[in-house]
Amino acid sequence: MDQKSLRAAVVGAGYWGPNLARNFASSDRWELAAVCDLDADRAARVAGVNGRVDVETSLAALLDRDDIDAVAIATPARTHHAIAMAALRAGKHVVVEKPIADSAAAADEMVAEARERGLVLMTDHTFCYTPAVRKIRELISLGELGDILYIDSVRINLGLVQPDVDVFWDLAPHDLSIVDFVLPGGLRPESVAAHGGDPLGTGKACVGYLFLPLASGAVVNVHVNWLSPTKIRRITIGGSRRTLVWDDLNPQQRLSVYDRGVNYEQIAADGEERRAATVSYRLGDTWSPALPEQEALGLMVAELADAITQERAPLTDGRAGRRVLGVLEAASASLAAGGTAVTPDPNRELELSA
Amino acid sequence: MDQKSLRAAVVGAGYWGPNLARNFASSDRWELAAVCDLDADRAARVAGVNGRVDVETSLAALLDRDDIDAVAIATPARTHHAIAMAALRAGKHVVVEKPIADSAAAADEMVAEARERGLVLMTDHTFCYTPAVRKIRELISLGELGDILYIDSVRINLGLVQPDVDVFWDLAPHDLSIVDFVLPGGLRPESVAAHGGDPLGTGKACVGYLFLPLASGAVVNVHVNWLSPTKIRRITIGGSRRTLVWDDLNPQQRLSVYDRGVNYEQIAADGEERRAATVSYRLGDTWSPALPEQEALGLMVAELADAITQERAPLTDGRAGRRVLGVLEAASASLAAGGTAVTPDPNRELELSA
Amino acid sequence: MDQKSLRAAVVGAGYWGPNLARNFASSDRWELAAVCDLDADRAARVAGVNGRVDVETSLAALLDRDDIDAVAIATPARTHHAIAMAALRAGKHVVVEKPIADSAAAADEMVAEARERGLVLMTDHTFCYTPAVRKIRELISLGELGDILYIDSVRINLGLVQPDVDVFWDLAPHDLSIVDFVLPGGLRPESVAAHGGDPLGTGKACVGYLFLPLASGAVVNVHVNWLSPTKIRRITIGGSRRTLVWDDLNPQQRLSVYDRGVNYEQIAADGEERRAATVSYRLGDTWSPALPEQEALGLMVAELADAITQERAPLTDGRAGRRVLGVLEAASASLAAGGTAVTPDPNRELELSA
Amino acid sequence: MDQKSLRAAVVGAGYWGPNLARNFASSDRWELAAVCDLDADRAARVAGVNGRVDVETSLAALLDRDDIDAVAIATPARTHHAIAMAALRAGKHVVVEKPIADSAAAADEMVAEARERGLVLMTDHTFCYTPAVRKIRELISLGELGDILYIDSVRINLGLVQPDVDVFWDLAPHDLSIVDFVLPGGLRPESVAAHGGDPLGTGKACVGYLFLPLASGAVVNVHVNWLSPTKIRRITIGGSRRTLVWDDLNPQQRLSVYDRGVNYEQIAADGEERRAATVSYRLGDTWSPALPEQEALGLMVAELADAITQERAPLTDGRAGRRVLGVLEAASASLAAGGTAVTPDPNRELELSA
Repeated sequence: MDQKSLRAAVVGAGYWGPNLARNFASSDRWELAAVCDLDADRAARVAGVNGRVDVETSLAALLDRDDIDAVAIATPARTHHAIAMAALRAGKHVVVEKPIADSAAAADEMVAEARERGLVLMTDHTFCYTPAVRKIRELISLGELGDILYIDSVRINLGLVQPDVDVFWDLAPHDLSIVDFVLPGGLRPESVAAHGGDPLGTGKACVGYLFLPLASGAVVNVHVNWLSPTKIRRITIGGSRRTLVWDDLNPQQRLSVYDRGVNYEQIAADGEERRAATVSYRLGDTWSPALPEQEALGLMVAELADAITQERAPLTDGRAGRRVLGVLEAASASLAAGGTAVTPDPNRELELSA
Repeated sequence: MDQKSLRAAVVGAGYWGPNLARNFASSDRWELAAVCDLDADRAARVAGVNGRVDVETSLAALLDRDDIDAVAIATPARTHHAIAMAALRAGKHVVVEKPIADSAAAADEMVAEARERGLVLMTDHTFCYTPAVRKIRELISLGELGDILYIDSVRINLGLVQPDVDVFWDLAPHDLSIVDFVLPGGLRPESVAAHGGDPLGTGKACVGYLFLPLASGAVVNVHVNWLSPTKIRRITIGGSRRTLVWDDLNPQQRLSVYDRGVNYEQIAADGEERRAATVSYRLGDTWSPALPEQEALGLMVAELADAITQERAPLTDGRAGRRVLGVLEAASASLAAGGTAVTPDPNRELELSA
Repeated sequence: MDQKSLRAAVVGAGYWGPNLARNFASSDRWELAAVCDLDADRAARVAGVNGRVDVETSLAALLDRDDIDAVAIATPARTHHAIAMAALRAGKHVVVEKPIADSAAAADEMVAEARERGLVLMTDHTFCYTPAVRKIRELISLGELGDILYIDSVRINLGLVQPDVDVFWDLAPHDLSIVDFVLPGGLRPESVAAHGGDPLGTGKACVGYLFLPLASGAVVNVHVNWLSPTKIRRITIGGSRRTLVWDDLNPQQRLSVYDRGVNYEQIAADGEERRAATVSYRLGDTWSPALPEQEALGLMVAELADAITQERAPLTDGRAGRRVLGVLEAASASLAAGGTAVTPDPNRELELSA
Repeated sequence: MDQKSLRAAVVGAGYWGPNLARNFASSDRWELAAVCDLDADRAARVAGVNGRVDVETSLAALLDRDDIDAVAIATPARTHHAIAMAALRAGKHVVVEKPIADSAAAADEMVAEARERGLVLMTDHTFCYTPAVRKIRELISLGELGDILYIDSVRINLGLVQPDVDVFWDLAPHDLSIVDFVLPGGLRPESVAAHGGDPLGTGKACVGYLFLPLASGAVVNVHVNWLSPTKIRRITIGGSRRTLVWDDLNPQQRLSVYDRGVNYEQIAADGEERRAATVSYRLGDTWSPALPEQEALGLMVAELADAITQERAPLTDGRAGRRVLGVLEAASASLAAGGTAVTPDPNRELELSA
């Protein structure tokens, strides 16, 4: 397959579709073939600014075309499953705006369908393609942080109190998709406890905390908040060797890697059962790696092209989207149960991944 | 009673006792009469730098003296109850280093004893006497923040992994005592859920989160961490009118009051059951009040003097210490139960306060 | 004149012209009538995205048209004078990208021509129309800062070492135009001393300092630097009542107004010649006013419309551009003279303003 | 000479003397033998807290003693010369609080006297012994920054408007002594231009700027200000390889080393006289070295001991103090001459150093 011959269609010309269209159009790996929307004018506007691009108002007609390799879905979440299934059945590779579907069960079907047909199913976890998050993943995979001990993620801001989703579903997908991306093996918590507050009486949590213990003994916490007048987007990843802080609102030093921490060792004493522990501290340097200036969405569409041509799963595949959805569903169940820890059902996903 | 005639004795000349001694000695309300420690040399050193002060090595002898109005107890927590009870029975007013006792039950006895005898029992919640925390209490009591919607407190740092206490008992007392101080009526959560991580396998939580919903619908969260290479001490208090952030590590702007937030109103529509909601945003100014430079412990000993002479409860009385202890005990119970929400027993405290 | 009937043409479709075109096109005060550039394709691209707009490649033809009220000039600085003079002679109002001309003498001619013809001549000092700078001007004019005591402006960053201009001409126009805008009466220094460094041997100053004493006793300092790996854009304006800091890179608190400072009073003592001084300190609150989100260039084109319809000088008129140019020329002269203070020739400008 | 046998006397028990006394007393290299002050009570208080230390009220008697190796002078600046000369003539090593004297000529005499007698004359430039400044010196001497291109030092704060000194003499000695310490060969500017502002009419500059070009083409700028409500203590040192920023008020990251900058190379083109230039940018990592927690004054007295026992000049010798004084005197001359660049007389100092 010629690397330049891939052709994409964007379905949905609302908020996110134009960004996808622009990045397919400007990529040297893709040709943007069509923009599809029920509203022809809206589709035409997106098509127009991206050069000679077809406008389609019928999904069926779009999927009938032989000259489309991949479909990018940027429609409301409740329609993702139907559109993606149709596209997969039409033999198209698919990338879906997050969340991948409106239920984990729906996502499971999409993952299964893609696998059976040997097609790429990708989730557009855009944040994972930012230079900072890619660097975090690289540092962890190289062992620079050692074993992961804890992850603390804060994403707070004055936010839109939304009619259909609570603060967990609105903001936490960003944190969860990032954690899923940087943890080797993905985010597979042993349980999910969610605590929320709705102090304005809106009927939905506006302040939320997620606690996700991992099998390794590490713990992940996510704090999301729509009512904060200050804006914080920070993820701290504590490791046995080093600790990393990502501060997305500090463009002059987005990543800091601290060679500081606690060393703890248990030592068997005197052949006996008694064990002694030694605690010591590392007080080393701080290091902030340079990051290239690259648009995340450009790297995302390039990864989609690579996954298709190399016939492999993309970095953020359908199962990643499904894992995030599984945690969110467990969070909703925990919230409904007063914060009791809920075990997400990982079996389906594990089975699928087998 | 002459305002200058109060006489104090400090019991315990270890880490905190010298600070108490110095502040009694330099106060214009107090005379430091004696320092008491089993180790006479240690007591003598503390007495020495504070002028002509008696050294006592026998608690009984100290309490027998007629010229002591109040006893300040700065000994290990497990001894607080016995020493305080003896002092109260000897007719002395008492101030106790935090935690007030090693169990809520012990604290209850101390509170009851002091009440029966008409003596002051105070907890040395030092942070509450800093200019910043006093200002927070004042702003809340004046209604400047409106109704409290949420409190998020973060206290993280590279900390000593300690042999006897976990990170909750080491760090959270600061946050809890502050929240108890600034909330009108004190901190009386409906339940306590605690989640902890011990990723180094030390046998004790090194990373912890507390979730405390209040009857008003507000939620309080406390995040404590011994493994963080960065130091954060920040409390955010979201209100219906304004939101306050205390950043203790920013001496140039410790308090910021944001006139920004979300306004949410439910409106009954058309005489029907259906209700509509309006959401709007305030994007007003930020204000950082000037704070005086004052030593917290100096204000604490002055408050003790005022409480004694005015025959009233001090701002941080024994019941405040007991409330903090009740939350910590509930947190330990929740932690042992895998994070299940535990209701602290407020009845005893409420009964006592009646 | 109908407020909606004003018609503008943009001359120059390079870097800045498209921004001007977009703002004229989206303004409810203006119609964008034409874009003029020697390169027809370039002009067509700018015209195209702004709706039905004429393309002109001949300046003479453009100026011959009767349906153009104002011309916005975004061509290289050396061409500003010729184009502006032609436009003024053709009876058009004119706004010129900064610097208004390549010499103060040329600017003087433009100012004189506009005055004689009763036309508006405006300098596009864009920064002056940002919400932050407008607020600074407002606070100063209301007396909130008291008398201005000093202004310290820092604008440093890794910058392009440019072939034709030094760091003063590249960066300081921003600082100087802002200071000119916020100082009542504009920036009229008694002298200009410039110190520069060219440690890389590029032939041009890459690090620079300007010192501008004012008649009032206040002093203005500007620090510009192309070699700094950190980016700072901060202006501190010290006043007798309050001090303001503008930190353009802190979007969460761009303006801070400090009610802190030194009070100094001289008191005649005892009817004698001897004078005593009292020094005291204000340690008051800090206040950060909320700023609206508005695009500066949109406010600039609205101000141009207002100036034309109200037949008054715009906030950043030709004389403001001329004053900035006068300081820059004096700075170059000072630099050539080893940092000796040089008096800018204010007479011409004062005469013009009479 | 036994390393433990050195004995010191502190002359002057006012503001700084107690700090010197405490550090001599707690050093393992020194014994604090005596504290000397005209006010016997004041001397006794300082002696008292430091153990069994003699009190002297007569300088002559002190200098007559055989058991004193070194004298530390912490008296008003105008008395430094007389006391130091007497001490040197009595065969004592001498360390003098900054400024070393009240005139460069007086300092020259002190330097000459010490040299002739083979005694150590040290200036107490305390800041130079902080871990941060020592690390800066080390990094520069190892070539980590490459050639120094510029130094920009800012030290601003609400300060005491003082009766006897202006802001240059009050604050700039810190900056100048640090720059002198970290620059290989010390601070030897080709000229000094000083600009000051006295907008309150106090009779002394309250806002000041120093510009110091070096022979290498590098430039040093110092900004000091008594009227700033914000506190900044920051030195930026731009190098051809890396740039270092010292932010003394950021304890979590005092030093940052940026591997970012501009590369500029001139290339002779085509065997002709014409030269082309290439400009490129390094956008590398940032690194913040860990710094030990050490009290600067403790390291200073240890350095004095080392210099005495090793019979070498201390890191901050009398000539360093004299160089700083020379720049300050030139600054005053420049200020009096309206900012004209003044050449400090380095000849005397160079001759002395020969």
